[in-house]
Amino acid sequence: MAQDLQQPLQSVQQRLEQQLHQHLDALQLADPRLAEAMTYGVLNGGKRLRPFLCYAATQALGGDWAQADAAATALEMVHSYSLVHDDLPAMDDDDLRRGKPTCHIAFDEATAILAGDGLLTAAFEVLANAPQQSAQQRLTLIRLLAQGSGGAGMVAGQSIDLGHVGKPMTLPQLERMHRHKTGALIRSAVLMGAHAASEDVDAATEQALVRYADAVGLAFQVQDDILDIEGDTATLGKNKGADLALNKPTYPALLGLDGARAKARELVADAHAALAGMTGDTSVLAQLADYIISRDH
Amino acid sequence: MAQDLQQPLQSVQQRLEQQLHQHLDALQLADPRLAEAMTYGVLNGGKRLRPFLCYAATQALGGDWAQADAAATALEMVHSYSLVHDDLPAMDDDDLRRGKPTCHIAFDEATAILAGDGLLTAAFEVLANAPQQSAQQRLTLIRLLAQGSGGAGMVAGQSIDLGHVGKPMTLPQLERMHRHKTGALIRSAVLMGAHAASEDVDAATEQALVRYADAVGLAFQVQDDILDIEGDTATLGKNKGADLALNKPTYPALLGLDGARAKARELVADAHAALAGMTGDTSVLAQLADYIISRDH
Repeated sequence: MAQDLQQPLQSVQQRLEQQLHQHLDALQLADPRLAEAMTYGVLNGGKRLRPFLCYAATQALGGDWAQADAAATALEMVHSYSLVHDDLPAMDDDDLRRGKPTCHIAFDEATAILAGDGLLTAAFEVLANAPQQSAQQRLTLIRLLAQGSGGAGMVAGQSIDLGHVGKPMTLPQLERMHRHKTGALIRSAVLMGAHAASEDVDAATEQALVRYADAVGLAFQVQDDILDIEGDTATLGKNKGADLALNKPTYPALLGLDGARAKARELVADAHAALAGMTGDTSVLAQLADYIISRDH
Repeated sequence: MAQDLQQPLQSVQQRLEQQLHQHLDALQLADPRLAEAMTYGVLNGGKRLRPFLCYAATQALGGDWAQADAAATALEMVHSYSLVHDDLPAMDDDDLRRGKPTCHIAFDEATAILAGDGLLTAAFEVLANAPQQSAQQRLTLIRLLAQGSGGAGMVAGQSIDLGHVGKPMTLPQLERMHRHKTGALIRSAVLMGAHAASEDVDAATEQALVRYADAVGLAFQVQDDILDIEGDTATLGKNKGADLALNKPTYPALLGLDGARAKARELVADAHAALAGMTGDTSVLAQLADYIISRDH
């Protein structure tokens, strides 16, 4: 079943790459080195999970993919900036991402900081100019992106994570960290897709999408922890067991490997249950939920 | 004459401090340490030049100060984030700002990076929720802020600056760097004040404000260079002559001290000329132009 997703995933990756190129060109970046680093940071061969969720949610609301282009582009700019900053020596100090030198290795630390800042800023400009949305919709998209990525969302999650380095974490603490660090932007991705498609997303749909996104976001993280133990360095493009070595709390560490696998399956079942109450074409959202626990990187 | 400005400058500082507290509270920051670092980064005893320009431009367009609150708050969040990131070891590596430890000294490097990211994101959320503006006006404010602060503006200026460290710069190169690094956000500040006050800023007014802002922004920088030589460490809260010691190109280095003073006066005269063609109460904008070359820090 998850194999069915390869084709739409690739379609999203290709579509998004084009969108990113177009939008980066339109920004009239005033310094070639900065432009190069921003491009390097965002055209990074990523899975484009957040854009995919955004396109799939637009489709579930009866919209076509073109309506989600600006939102998907902005989401990936924000996700990419967070990776560039996360990889910095003062943060995770990673030299490799997906087998390629991280931005501060390919360029330098200062340029990586600025490239991240530039991508974050660009994301909001892209949404302010979203050609297929009304002014009200654009503002909703901007609010959702800011809430998911800022000090109430992703950035808070990173700070919570930093505050726990080398310290034990309980399951509720681990979950709270992930719900902020990755879950919040995934929730925003799904909601942005919905609001890009429709001026008027009803409360029941919004609630179902939030439940779906929260389950999928956490499942993704649990599976990441599992893959970190099971995975193979070549497939992942990073050192196997890196998180364990750093003594970071993980789902397998807290629940055991079987317990973590069961948790991931429960979350995916919850994602399906959330979609069951929705009208519209939720098939791609459903496929994605299955993909998460079947993927090997 | 410039003394007349002390009272409005203090009014802006007090008003903005309240606004910043209110907006930071409303953001529901999810991690106390991050919230503390963001607050520390933005409640920093700054001059609040950009908010001041924003309020003064709103006044020039016949608006009242309350209409500029959201724009002024967002501008200062962006300016403050840029200082927090600029001070990092990988960038300017400054331990002190206005006599206080910089954010990464008071907290740590990772927290300072995240606090900057959080402030930048918050700025756009504040504008998306600006209570006194229409949806179209909010989008205009968001565009202006992004253009002034992102890869076509301030961030590009910082990158251009980094690219020239230790290298000689011609006068046009120095000017281009400053027009991006500080000028772009100052231009945005003035235009945001105007667009916060009015749904329909006419082209002549917009042109006059751009000319005023560009002159004032550059004058500020020339005067900064002059003060860096003349100034006293205690007054400035940073080490005298630091820029010269770093072999950075400055206006006095390129034009001589007298030449730099003449340049600053010319720019201030140009700012006044720009205002001469405007209707409305431009008195505070005019006073600010004079203040720039009379200030001692």
